[in-house]
Amino acid sequence: MKILIIGANGTIGKKVAQALSTKHEIITAGRTSGDIQMDITSAQSIEAGFKQIGSLDACICTAGTGYYGKLETMTEENVYSGIRNKLMGQINVVLIGQHYLNDTGSITLTSGILSEEPVRNSSCVAMLNGGINSFVLAASLELTRGIRINVVSPGLVEDSVERYGASFPGIDPVPMNKVVNAYIRSTEGAITGKILKVYA
Amino acid sequence: MKILIIGANGTIGKKVAQALSTKHEIITAGRTSGDIQMDITSAQSIEAGFKQIGSLDACICTAGTGYYGKLETMTEENVYSGIRNKLMGQINVVLIGQHYLNDTGSITLTSGILSEEPVRNSSCVAMLNGGINSFVLAASLELTRGIRINVVSPGLVEDSVERYGASFPGIDPVPMNKVVNAYIRSTEGAITGKILKVYA
Ligand SMILES: NC(=O)c1ccc[n+]([C@@H]2O[C@H](COP(=O)([O-])OP(=O)(O)OC[C@H]3O[C@@H](n4cnc5c(N)ncnc54)[C@H](OP(=O)(O)O)[C@@H]3O)[C@@H](O)[C@H]2O)c1
Ligand SMILES: NC(=O)c1ccc[n+]([C@@H]2O[C@H](COP(=O)([O-])OP(=O)(O)OC[C@H]3O[C@@H](n4cnc5c(N)ncnc54)[C@H](OP(=O)(O)O)[C@@H]3O)[C@@H](O)[C@H]2O)c1
Repeated sequence: MKILIIGANGTIGKKVAQALSTKHEIITAGRTSGDIQMDITSAQSIEAGFKQIGSLDACICTAGTGYYGKLETMTEENVYSGIRNKLMGQINVVLIGQHYLNDTGSITLTSGILSEEPVRNSSCVAMLNGGINSFVLAASLELTRGIRINVVSPGLVEDSVERYGASFPGIDPVPMNKVVNAYIRSTEGAITGKILKVYA
Repeated sequence: MKILIIGANGTIGKKVAQALSTKHEIITAGRTSGDIQMDITSAQSIEAGFKQIGSLDACICTAGTGYYGKLETMTEENVYSGIRNKLMGQINVVLIGQHYLNDTGSITLTSGILSEEPVRNSSCVAMLNGGINSFVLAASLELTRGIRINVVSPGLVEDSVERYGASFPGIDPVPMNKVVNAYIRSTEGAITGKILKVYA
Protein backbone atom coordinates (compact mmCIF):
# COMPACT_ATOMS: atom_id res chain seq x y z
CA MET A 1 0.00 0.00 0.00
CA LYS A 2 0.99 3.62 -0.54
CA ILE A 3 0.43 5.32 2.82
CA LEU A 4 0.61 9.02 3.68
CA ILE A 5 1.45 9.76 7.33
CA ILE A 6 0.86 13.39 8.32
CA GLY A 7 2.82 14.10 11.49
CA ALA A 8 5.28 11.31 10.72
CA ASN A 9 8.08 13.06 12.56
CA GLY A 10 6.18 13.29 15.85
CA THR A 11 6.38 11.07 18.92
CA ILE A 12 3.61 8.75 17.76
CA GLY A 13 3.91 9.28 14.00
CA LYS A 14 7.59 8.29 13.98
CA LYS A 15 6.84 4.89 15.47
CA VAL A 16 3.80 4.33 13.24
CA ALA A 17 5.89 5.16 10.15
CA GLN A 18 8.64 2.82 11.29
CA ALA A 19 6.25 -0.09 11.84
CA LEU A 20 4.36 0.34 8.56
CA SER A 21 7.48 0.89 6.44
CA THR A 22 8.45 -2.79 6.60
CA LYS A 23 5.46 -3.73 4.43
CA HIS A 24 4.35 -0.52 2.72
CA GLU A 25 5.49 2.51 0.76
CA ILE A 26 5.39 5.40 3.23
CA ILE A 27 5.15 9.08 2.37
CA THR A 28 5.91 11.21 5.41
CA ALA A 29 4.46 14.69 5.84
CA GLY A 30 4.78 17.43 8.42
CA ARG A 31 4.65 21.16 8.76
CA THR A 32 8.42 21.47 8.48
CA SER A 33 9.62 17.84 8.25
CA GLY A 34 8.97 14.87 5.97
CA ASP A 35 8.94 13.91 2.29
CA ILE A 36 6.34 16.56 1.65
CA GLN A 37 5.26 19.64 3.62
CA MET A 38 1.63 19.88 4.60
CA ASP A 39 0.14 22.29 7.14
CA ILE A 40 -3.17 20.86 8.34
CA THR A 41 -4.32 24.31 9.48
CA SER A 42 -4.57 25.24 5.80
CA ALA A 43 -7.01 23.55 3.40
CA GLN A 44 -4.90 24.83 0.49
CA SER A 45 -1.80 23.15 1.91
CA ILE A 46 -3.65 19.86 2.46
CA GLU A 47 -5.05 19.94 -1.07
CA ALA A 48 -1.61 20.72 -2.50
CA GLY A 49 -0.10 17.81 -0.58
CA PHE A 50 -2.65 15.29 -1.82
CA LYS A 51 -2.27 16.62 -5.38
CA GLN A 52 1.47 16.15 -5.20
CA ILE A 53 1.04 12.51 -4.12
CA GLY A 54 -1.54 11.82 -6.82
CA SER A 55 -3.27 8.73 -5.50
CA LEU A 56 -2.86 6.71 -2.35
CA ASP A 57 -4.27 3.76 -0.43
CA ALA A 58 -4.24 5.06 3.11
CA CYS A 59 -3.84 8.29 5.02
CA ILE A 60 -2.93 8.49 8.70
CA CYS A 61 -2.94 11.76 10.61
CA THR A 62 -0.93 11.94 13.82
CA ALA A 63 -0.58 15.73 13.65
CA GLY A 64 -2.65 18.15 15.64
CA THR A 65 -2.41 20.26 18.75
CA GLY A 66 -4.88 22.19 20.86
CA TYR A 67 -4.92 24.77 23.61
CA TYR A 68 -4.17 23.66 27.16
CA GLY A 69 -5.11 26.12 29.87
CA LYS A 70 -7.45 27.13 32.66
CA LEU A 71 -11.19 27.29 31.98
CA GLU A 72 -11.45 30.44 34.09
CA THR A 73 -9.32 32.53 31.74
CA MET A 74 -9.83 30.67 28.46
CA THR A 75 -10.75 32.94 25.56
CA GLU A 76 -12.64 32.34 22.36
CA GLU A 77 -9.37 32.75 20.45
CA ASN A 78 -7.69 30.09 22.61
CA VAL A 79 -10.45 27.67 21.65
CA TYR A 80 -10.31 28.62 17.96
CA SER A 81 -6.53 28.06 17.85
CA GLY A 82 -7.24 24.42 18.75
CA ILE A 83 -10.24 24.17 16.44
CA ARG A 84 -8.23 25.36 13.45
CA ASN A 85 -5.49 22.84 14.19
CA LYS A 86 -6.43 19.42 15.59
CA LEU A 87 -10.18 19.59 14.79
CA MET A 88 -10.72 21.41 11.49
CA GLY A 89 -7.28 20.28 10.35
CA GLN A 90 -8.18 16.61 10.64
CA ILE A 91 -11.70 17.18 9.28
CA ASN A 92 -10.16 18.86 6.23
CA VAL A 93 -7.85 15.87 5.78
CA VAL A 94 -11.05 13.80 5.42
CA LEU A 95 -13.08 16.30 3.33
CA ILE A 96 -10.17 16.70 0.89
CA GLY A 97 -8.50 13.30 1.20
CA GLN A 98 -11.69 11.35 0.38
CA HIS A 99 -11.33 12.50 -3.23
CA TYR A 100 -7.72 11.30 -3.58
CA LEU A 101 -7.91 7.88 -1.90
CA ASN A 102 -8.08 4.75 -4.03
CA ASP A 103 -11.14 2.48 -3.75
CA THR A 104 -11.21 0.59 -0.42
CA GLY A 105 -8.62 3.01 0.94
CA SER A 106 -8.60 4.15 4.55
CA ILE A 107 -8.23 7.22 6.71
CA THR A 108 -7.08 7.09 10.34
CA LEU A 109 -7.29 10.17 12.56
CA THR A 110 -6.06 10.75 16.11
CA SER A 111 -8.04 11.97 19.12
CA GLY A 112 -7.13 11.06 22.72
CA ILE A 113 -8.30 9.87 26.13
CA LEU A 114 -9.11 13.42 27.30
CA SER A 115 -12.46 13.24 25.48
CA GLU A 116 -13.65 10.80 28.16
CA GLU A 117 -11.17 11.15 31.00
CA PRO A 118 -10.31 14.84 31.14
CA VAL A 119 -7.81 16.45 33.50
CA ARG A 120 -7.33 20.05 34.61
CA ASN A 121 -6.70 22.57 31.80
CA SER A 122 -7.96 20.19 29.13
CA SER A 123 -11.41 21.63 28.28
CA CYS A 124 -10.33 22.73 24.81
CA VAL A 125 -8.42 19.57 23.89
CA ALA A 126 -11.12 17.30 25.39
CA MET A 127 -13.63 19.09 23.15
CA LEU A 128 -11.45 18.67 20.05
CA ASN A 129 -11.02 14.95 20.76
CA GLY A 130 -14.72 14.38 21.38
CA GLY A 131 -15.55 16.22 18.18
CA ILE A 132 -13.14 14.14 16.11
CA ASN A 133 -14.47 10.89 17.55
CA SER A 134 -18.07 11.73 16.67
CA PHE A 135 -17.12 13.10 13.26
CA VAL A 136 -15.48 9.77 12.41
CA LEU A 137 -18.52 7.75 13.50
CA ALA A 138 -20.72 9.88 11.24
CA ALA A 139 -18.31 10.13 8.29
CA SER A 140 -17.97 6.33 8.16
CA LEU A 141 -21.64 6.12 7.12
CA GLU A 142 -21.07 8.24 4.05
CA LEU A 143 -17.64 7.57 2.59
CA THR A 144 -18.02 6.01 -0.86
CA ARG A 145 -16.05 3.42 -2.88
CA GLY A 146 -15.42 1.26 0.19
CA ILE A 147 -13.23 3.88 1.84
CA ARG A 148 -12.96 3.30 5.57
CA ILE A 149 -12.32 5.71 8.44
CA ASN A 150 -11.33 5.15 12.07
CA VAL A 151 -9.79 7.18 14.86
CA VAL A 152 -7.15 6.13 17.35
CA SER A 153 -7.70 7.55 20.83
CA PRO A 154 -4.47 7.07 22.78
CA GLY A 155 -3.93 7.48 26.47
CA LEU A 156 -0.67 9.12 27.53
CA VAL A 157 1.97 7.11 25.66
CA GLU A 158 5.05 6.02 27.55
CA ASP A 159 7.29 8.01 25.17
CA SER A 160 5.54 11.24 26.27
CA VAL A 161 5.60 10.76 30.03
CA GLU A 162 8.54 13.07 30.49
CA ARG A 163 6.93 15.79 28.35
CA TYR A 164 3.31 15.61 29.58
CA GLY A 165 3.28 13.34 32.65
CA ALA A 166 2.95 16.17 35.17
CA SER A 167 -0.47 17.07 33.73
CA PHE A 168 -1.79 13.53 34.24
CA PRO A 169 -1.26 12.67 37.91
CA GLY A 170 -1.51 8.94 38.52
CA ILE A 171 -2.23 7.97 34.93
CA ASP A 172 -0.82 4.64 33.73
CA PRO A 173 1.14 5.30 30.52
CA VAL A 174 0.22 3.27 27.47
CA PRO A 175 2.82 1.09 25.73
CA MET A 176 3.71 2.65 22.36
CA ASN A 177 3.47 -0.69 20.56
CA LYS A 178 -0.23 -0.93 21.45
CA VAL A 179 -0.86 2.54 20.05
CA VAL A 180 1.06 1.66 16.89
CA ASN A 181 -0.99 -1.53 16.56
CA ALA A 182 -4.21 0.48 16.57
CA TYR A 183 -3.03 2.45 13.52
CA ILE A 184 -2.04 -0.83 11.82
CA ARG A 185 -5.42 -2.38 12.65
CA SER A 186 -7.23 0.59 11.18
CA THR A 187 -5.05 0.73 8.06
CA GLU A 188 -4.67 -2.96 7.20
CA GLY A 189 -7.86 -4.31 8.78
CA ALA A 190 -11.48 -4.21 7.59
CA ILE A 191 -12.99 -2.07 10.35
CA THR A 192 -14.65 1.30 9.79
CA GLY A 193 -16.36 3.84 12.04
CA LYS A 194 -14.44 2.68 15.10
CA ILE A 195 -12.92 4.67 17.93
CA LEU A 196 -9.86 2.58 18.78
CA LYS A 197 -9.31 3.38 22.44
CA VAL A 198 -5.81 2.54 23.65
CA TYR A 199 -6.07 3.51 27.30
CA ALA A 200 -4.08 0.72 28.95
CA MET B 1 -33.88 30.36 41.53
CA LYS B 2 -33.32 32.93 38.81
CA ILE B 3 -32.83 30.93 35.61
CA LEU B 4 -31.77 32.15 32.16
CA ILE B 5 -32.96 29.97 29.27
CA ILE B 6 -31.27 30.75 25.96
CA GLY B 7 -33.40 29.35 23.15
CA ALA B 8 -36.53 29.50 25.30
CA ASN B 9 -38.78 29.99 22.30
CA GLY B 10 -37.60 26.80 20.55
CA THR B 11 -39.24 23.38 20.45
CA ILE B 12 -37.37 22.09 23.49
CA GLY B 13 -36.70 25.43 25.22
CA LYS B 14 -40.39 26.35 25.31
CA LYS B 15 -41.29 23.20 27.25
CA VAL B 16 -38.31 23.54 29.59
CA ALA B 17 -39.28 27.15 30.35
CA GLN B 18 -42.87 26.15 30.96
CA ALA B 19 -41.92 23.38 33.40
CA LEU B 20 -39.39 25.44 35.37
CA SER B 21 -41.59 28.56 35.55
CA THR B 22 -43.87 26.98 38.16
CA LYS B 23 -41.10 27.10 40.78
CA HIS B 24 -38.55 29.61 39.48
CA GLU B 25 -38.05 33.06 38.03
CA ILE B 26 -37.36 32.51 34.32
CA ILE B 27 -35.58 34.92 31.99
CA THR B 28 -36.07 33.87 28.38
CA ALA B 29 -33.53 34.70 25.69
CA GLY B 30 -33.30 34.14 21.95
CA ARG B 31 -31.82 35.67 18.86
CA THR B 32 -35.06 37.46 18.04
CA SER B 33 -37.48 36.31 20.77
CA GLY B 34 -37.57 36.39 24.58
CA ASP B 35 -37.18 38.79 27.51
CA ILE B 36 -33.70 39.62 26.30
CA GLN B 37 -31.95 39.19 22.95
CA MET B 38 -28.77 37.17 22.92
CA ASP B 39 -27.03 35.80 19.84
CA ILE B 40 -24.81 32.90 20.89
CA THR B 41 -22.69 33.28 17.74
CA SER B 42 -21.38 36.53 19.23
CA ALA B 43 -19.34 36.66 22.44
CA GLN B 44 -20.19 40.36 22.75
CA SER B 45 -23.90 39.59 22.61
CA ILE B 46 -23.58 36.84 25.23
CA GLU B 47 -21.57 39.11 27.52
CA ALA B 48 -24.12 41.93 27.08
CA GLY B 49 -26.96 39.55 27.93
CA PHE B 50 -25.34 38.31 31.14
CA LYS B 51 -24.49 41.92 32.12
CA GLN B 52 -28.09 42.95 31.63
CA ILE B 53 -29.28 40.16 33.95
CA GLY B 54 -26.66 40.93 36.58
CA SER B 55 -26.54 37.74 38.57
CA LEU B 56 -28.30 34.42 38.22
CA ASP B 57 -28.51 30.93 39.68
CA ALA B 58 -28.75 28.82 36.57
CA CYS B 59 -28.28 29.05 32.83
CA ILE B 60 -29.76 26.62 30.33
CA CYS B 61 -28.89 26.72 26.64
CA THR B 62 -31.28 25.05 24.21
CA ALA B 63 -30.14 27.20 21.29
CA GLY B 64 -27.76 26.07 18.59
CA THR B 65 -27.78 24.75 15.08
CA GLY B 66 -25.24 23.12 12.80
CA TYR B 67 -24.79 22.22 9.17
CA TYR B 68 -26.59 19.17 7.80
CA GLY B 69 -25.33 17.88 4.47
CA LYS B 70 -23.38 15.32 2.52
CA LEU B 71 -19.81 14.53 3.53
CA GLU B 72 -18.81 14.33 -0.12
CA THR B 73 -19.49 18.00 -0.81
CA MET B 74 -19.07 19.46 2.68
CA THR B 75 -16.82 22.52 2.79
CA GLU B 76 -14.69 24.01 5.51
CA GLU B 77 -17.11 26.95 5.66
CA ASN B 78 -20.08 24.58 6.15
CA VAL B 79 -18.30 23.09 9.17
CA TYR B 80 -17.33 26.51 10.55
CA SER B 81 -20.94 27.73 10.32
CA GLY B 82 -21.86 24.98 12.78
CA ILE B 83 -18.77 25.53 14.92
CA ARG B 84 -19.55 29.23 15.37
CA ASN B 85 -23.13 28.43 16.35
CA LYS B 86 -23.84 25.30 18.40
CA LEU B 87 -20.22 24.59 19.47
CA MET B 88 -18.38 27.86 20.09
CA GLY B 89 -21.71 29.51 20.98
CA GLN B 90 -22.33 27.13 23.85
CA ILE B 91 -18.67 27.14 24.91
CA ASN B 92 -18.82 30.93 25.08
CA VAL B 93 -21.95 30.69 27.24
CA VAL B 94 -19.76 28.75 29.70
CA LEU B 95 -16.58 30.84 29.38
CA ILE B 96 -18.56 34.05 29.92
CA GLY B 97 -21.42 32.76 32.09
CA GLN B 98 -19.09 31.25 34.71
CA HIS B 99 -18.27 34.77 35.87
CA TYR B 100 -21.92 35.81 36.30
CA LEU B 101 -23.38 32.76 38.03
CA ASN B 102 -23.99 32.82 41.77
CA ASP B 103 -22.12 30.34 43.98
CA THR B 104 -23.41 26.77 43.53
CA GLY B 105 -25.13 27.86 40.33
CA SER B 106 -25.45 25.59 37.31
CA ILE B 107 -25.05 25.54 33.54
CA THR B 108 -26.86 23.08 31.29
CA LEU B 109 -25.96 22.79 27.62
CA THR B 110 -27.55 20.74 24.82
CA SER B 111 -25.90 18.24 22.48
CA GLY B 112 -27.78 15.31 20.88
CA ILE B 113 -27.83 11.60 20.06
CA LEU B 114 -25.99 12.14 16.74
CA SER B 115 -22.67 12.21 18.62
CA GLU B 116 -23.06 8.47 19.20
CA GLU B 117 -25.71 7.35 16.75
CA PRO B 118 -25.13 9.38 13.60
CA VAL B 119 -27.26 9.26 10.47
CA ARG B 120 -26.54 10.34 6.88
CA ASN B 121 -25.62 14.02 6.43
CA SER B 122 -24.84 14.46 10.12
CA SER B 123 -21.02 14.55 10.17
CA CYS B 124 -20.90 18.22 11.14
CA VAL B 125 -23.63 18.10 13.79
CA ALA B 126 -22.34 14.81 15.21
CA MET B 127 -18.95 16.48 15.63
CA LEU B 128 -20.47 19.53 17.35
CA ASN B 129 -22.40 17.30 19.76
CA GLY B 130 -19.38 15.14 20.57
CA GLY B 131 -17.32 18.25 21.18
CA ILE B 132 -19.88 19.74 23.55
CA ASN B 133 -20.17 16.51 25.52
CA SER B 134 -16.42 16.26 26.09
CA PHE B 135 -16.10 19.97 26.84
CA VAL B 136 -18.67 19.60 29.62
CA LEU B 137 -16.88 16.61 31.17
CA ALA B 138 -13.65 18.62 31.27
CA ALA B 139 -15.15 21.95 32.34
CA SER B 140 -16.86 20.31 35.32
CA LEU B 141 -13.41 19.63 36.82
CA GLU B 142 -12.51 23.31 36.84
CA LEU B 143 -15.59 25.41 37.54
CA THR B 144 -15.14 27.20 40.85
CA ARG B 145 -17.49 28.26 43.69
CA GLY B 146 -19.48 25.02 43.47
CA ILE B 147 -20.81 25.85 40.03
CA ARG B 148 -22.03 22.74 38.23
CA ILE B 149 -22.26 21.91 34.52
CA ASN B 150 -24.08 19.17 32.62
CA VAL B 151 -25.27 18.56 29.09
CA VAL B 152 -28.55 17.08 27.92
CA SER B 153 -28.20 14.84 24.86
CA PRO B 154 -31.70 14.30 23.46
CA GLY B 155 -32.77 11.80 20.87
CA LEU B 156 -35.29 13.01 18.30
CA VAL B 157 -38.07 14.49 20.45
CA GLU B 158 -41.64 13.62 19.59
CA ASP B 159 -42.46 17.31 18.99
CA SER B 160 -39.87 17.38 16.16
CA VAL B 161 -40.84 14.21 14.29
CA GLU B 162 -42.71 16.11 11.62
CA ARG B 163 -39.80 18.51 11.07
CA TYR B 164 -36.85 16.09 11.22
CA GLY B 165 -38.30 12.55 11.21
CA ALA B 166 -37.42 11.84 7.56
CA SER B 167 -33.70 12.13 8.37
CA PHE B 168 -33.95 9.51 11.11
CA PRO B 169 -35.47 6.39 9.54
CA GLY B 170 -36.78 3.98 12.15
CA ILE B 171 -35.80 6.05 15.16
CA ASP B 172 -38.07 5.88 18.19
CA PRO B 173 -38.96 9.45 19.18
CA VAL B 174 -38.27 10.49 22.76
CA PRO B 175 -41.11 11.76 24.98
CA MET B 176 -40.66 15.51 25.56
CA ASN B 177 -41.36 15.17 29.29
CA LYS B 178 -38.27 12.98 29.68
CA VAL B 179 -36.11 15.56 27.90
CA VAL B 180 -37.56 18.32 30.08
CA ASN B 181 -36.83 16.21 33.17
CA ALA B 182 -33.17 15.99 32.23
CA TYR B 183 -32.91 19.82 32.26
CA ILE B 184 -34.69 19.90 35.62
CA ARG B 185 -32.38 17.21 37.02
CA SER B 186 -29.33 19.15 35.90
CA THR B 187 -30.63 22.48 37.21
CA GLU B 188 -32.20 21.49 40.53
CA GLY B 189 -30.11 18.37 41.29
CA ALA B 190 -26.58 18.00 42.63
CA ILE B 191 -24.96 16.33 39.63
CA THR B 192 -22.08 17.79 37.65
CA GLY B 193 -20.02 16.65 34.66
CA LYS B 194 -22.80 14.40 33.40
CA ILE B 195 -23.99 13.74 29.87
CA LEU B 196 -27.71 13.20 30.40
CA LYS B 197 -28.63 10.92 27.52
CA VAL B 198 -32.35 10.86 26.75
CA TYR B 199 -32.47 8.39 23.91
CA ALA B 200 -35.66 6.45 24.73
N1 LIG C 1 1.76 11.84 22.89
C1 LIG C 1 0.74 11.36 23.61
O1 LIG C 1 0.90 10.79 24.70
C2 LIG C 1 -0.65 11.51 23.09
C3 LIG C 1 -1.74 11.02 23.82
C4 LIG C 1 -3.02 11.18 23.32
C5 LIG C 1 -3.22 11.81 22.12
N2 LIG C 1 -2.15 12.29 21.43
C6 LIG C 1 -2.39 12.96 20.14
O2 LIG C 1 -1.66 12.31 19.12
C7 LIG C 1 -1.25 13.26 18.14
C8 LIG C 1 0.25 13.16 17.97
O3 LIG C 1 0.86 13.43 19.21
P1 LIG C 1 2.46 13.45 19.35
O4 LIG C 1 2.77 13.52 20.81
O5 LIG C 1 3.04 12.37 18.53
O6 LIG C 1 2.77 14.88 18.69
P2 LIG C 1 4.17 15.57 18.43
O7 LIG C 1 5.29 14.74 18.94
O8 LIG C 1 4.07 16.97 18.89
O9 LIG C 1 4.28 15.54 16.84
C9 LIG C 1 3.45 16.28 16.06
C10 LIG C 1 3.81 16.07 14.60
O10 LIG C 1 2.80 16.68 13.82
C11 LIG C 1 3.37 17.64 12.98
N3 LIG C 1 2.53 18.85 12.97
C12 LIG C 1 2.28 19.75 13.95
N4 LIG C 1 1.46 20.70 13.53
C13 LIG C 1 1.20 20.41 12.24
C14 LIG C 1 0.45 21.04 11.22
N5 LIG C 1 -0.24 22.19 11.46
N6 LIG C 1 0.39 20.46 10.00
C15 LIG C 1 1.05 19.31 9.75
N7 LIG C 1 1.79 18.70 10.66
C16 LIG C 1 1.88 19.24 11.88
C17 LIG C 1 4.76 17.96 13.47
O11 LIG C 1 5.51 18.15 12.32
P3 LIG C 1 6.79 19.12 12.29
O12 LIG C 1 7.78 18.44 13.21
O13 LIG C 1 7.20 19.07 10.84
O14 LIG C 1 6.33 20.46 12.75
C18 LIG C 1 5.13 16.69 14.23
O15 LIG C 1 5.78 15.81 13.38
C19 LIG C 1 -1.74 14.63 18.65
O16 LIG C 1 -2.98 14.90 18.06
C20 LIG C 1 -1.92 14.39 20.13
O17 LIG C 1 -2.89 15.26 20.70
C21 LIG C 1 -0.88 12.16 21.87
N1 LIG D 1 -35.57 18.88 18.43
C1 LIG D 1 -34.95 17.71 18.56
O1 LIG D 1 -35.51 16.62 18.33
C2 LIG D 1 -33.53 17.69 19.02
C3 LIG D 1 -32.88 16.45 19.18
C4 LIG D 1 -31.56 16.44 19.62
C5 LIG D 1 -30.90 17.63 19.88
N2 LIG D 1 -31.55 18.81 19.69
C6 LIG D 1 -30.83 20.05 19.97
O2 LIG D 1 -31.54 20.81 20.92
C7 LIG D 1 -31.36 22.20 20.68
C8 LIG D 1 -32.72 22.86 20.57
O3 LIG D 1 -33.43 22.24 19.50
P1 LIG D 1 -34.87 22.74 19.09
O4 LIG D 1 -35.43 21.74 18.13
O5 LIG D 1 -35.65 23.09 20.33
O6 LIG D 1 -34.48 24.08 18.29
P2 LIG D 1 -35.46 25.16 17.65
O7 LIG D 1 -36.88 24.74 17.77
O8 LIG D 1 -34.93 25.44 16.28
O9 LIG D 1 -35.24 26.41 18.59
C9 LIG D 1 -34.05 27.07 18.62
C10 LIG D 1 -34.17 28.25 19.56
O10 LIG D 1 -32.87 28.78 19.73
C11 LIG D 1 -32.86 30.14 19.37
N3 LIG D 1 -31.65 30.43 18.60
C12 LIG D 1 -31.27 29.99 17.37
N4 LIG D 1 -30.09 30.49 17.03
C13 LIG D 1 -29.71 31.27 18.07
C14 LIG D 1 -28.59 32.10 18.31
N5 LIG D 1 -27.60 32.22 17.41
N6 LIG D 1 -28.53 32.75 19.50
C15 LIG D 1 -29.49 32.64 20.41
N7 LIG D 1 -30.59 31.89 20.23
C16 LIG D 1 -30.70 31.24 19.06
C17 LIG D 1 -34.09 30.44 18.56
O11 LIG D 1 -34.49 31.74 18.94
P3 LIG D 1 -35.27 32.71 17.97
O12 LIG D 1 -36.59 32.03 17.75
O13 LIG D 1 -35.35 33.97 18.75
O14 LIG D 1 -34.44 32.81 16.70
C18 LIG D 1 -35.05 29.36 19.05
O15 LIG D 1 -35.81 29.83 20.11
C19 LIG D 1 -30.51 22.29 19.42
O16 LIG D 1 -29.16 22.42 19.79
C20 LIG D 1 -30.72 20.95 18.76
O17 LIG D 1 -29.64 20.57 17.94
C21 LIG D 1 -32.84 18.87 19.28
